Amino acid sequence: MKGLFITLEGGDGAGKSTQIRNIERFFDEKGLVVMHTREPGGTPIGEKLRDILLDKNNAEMDDITEMLVYAASRAQHVRERILPALEEGKVVICDRFTDSSIAYQGYGRQLGEQVAEVNRRATGGLEPDITFWLDIDPYVGRERAGNEGELDRLETEEMDFHCRVRDGYRELTEKDPGRIKRIDASKTIDEMRDDIYACLEELCRSRGL
Amino acid sequence: MKGLFITLEGGDGAGKSTQIRNIERFFDEKGLVVMHTREPGGTPIGEKLRDILLDKNNAEMDDITEMLVYAASRAQHVRERILPALEEGKVVICDRFTDSSIAYQGYGRQLGEQVAEVNRRATGGLEPDITFWLDIDPYVGRERAGNEGELDRLETEEMDFHCRVRDGYRELTEKDPGRIKRIDASKTIDEMRDDIYACLEELCRSRGL
Repeated sequence: MKGLFITLEGGDGAGKSTQIRNIERFFDEKGLVVMHTREPGGTPIGEKLRDILLDKNNAEMDDITEMLVYAASRAQHVRERILPALEEGKVVICDRFTDSSIAYQGYGRQLGEQVAEVNRRATGGLEPDITFWLDIDPYVGRERAGNEGELDRLETEEMDFHCRVRDGYRELTEKDPGRIKRIDASKTIDEMRDDIYACLEELCRSRGL
Repeated sequence: MKGLFITLEGGDGAGKSTQIRNIERFFDEKGLVVMHTREPGGTPIGEKLRDILLDKNNAEMDDITEMLVYAASRAQHVRERILPALEEGKVVICDRFTDSSIAYQGYGRQLGEQVAEVNRRATGGLEPDITFWLDIDPYVGRERAGNEGELDRLETEEMDFHCRVRDGYRELTEKDPGRIKRIDASKTIDEMRDDIYACLEELCRSRGL
């Protein structure tokens, strides 16, 4: 594979969109062609599957169904867009990938190991060259979003979920420290950018870019 | 599980619909409540996934995506309709189930073992109590459908596909002869019904029904 595959992970409010723009700028300046994409979606079939996932009328969707629809969307995305772009030597920056499914469904919804197994089938084993996990304490993220004060029952449940998701990302990072880089999202935007750029410089050196 | 789970398999033109009506009649006469359903689909979410599978505009769908969408539809079907009906003690008759995916995708499209593995996740391991495979020679099926004469290249490819699917059903039947009953679909409709009824009588006896 000639290109580079870069993914961003982390909860909402951690600043992913801003750092994606920074990463695009980094590679633009090196004169490399960048493709920016997102999950779920990224292809016409994937967008149709995304509509089903996000449709509030589908509240009866089972957790296993949800896991499989995400995996189907990813399978199409990998084969129709990501692999062809990598084969053309492009830098592919993807907002969320398999690690999201493992963290949110495997840990958050407690579906366990099967999430990784099904996703290995979906991706054909494709892994990012580097993944930035923008890590933010869920309680801090909640404050940033302007929701302060005491938690009601549903919000407490939701915070438990987000704490399990964070534990998931932490375990994934411990298992694969060469690929997944934890970026402390309590830092300023510019500090985060500098941490990310340092990792990217090292990656480019190792690839002779 | 209190109910009975019965599935029908086999190519088009083998006479599945007619035999499904015969099976319904068999259980009606025993005074049991029958639920008849089909795959893919069977639930509102499953019907939406089915629309994506059957939409001719989605010709770029990858084989792995297709396998995962079928599995997602099945996961929802099992949890929303099949398991609750079985728990109420109903007889569930399903037109196609996991064996179809293994035969068509695993053997026909040559995706191999992963189809069974992903479907075990989708169904949570649920297997039919009995499966009738209505077996017809693909060339005979083609004649029945009124398409005779020499085969062109695409038709030859299609016949190769259907021959692989048939090999798949044959191997599944050899592996699990207690569950899968081959019904010779070159027989008359009434002969097939009698063969099916003999199997059902035995199943009912073993369950004290």
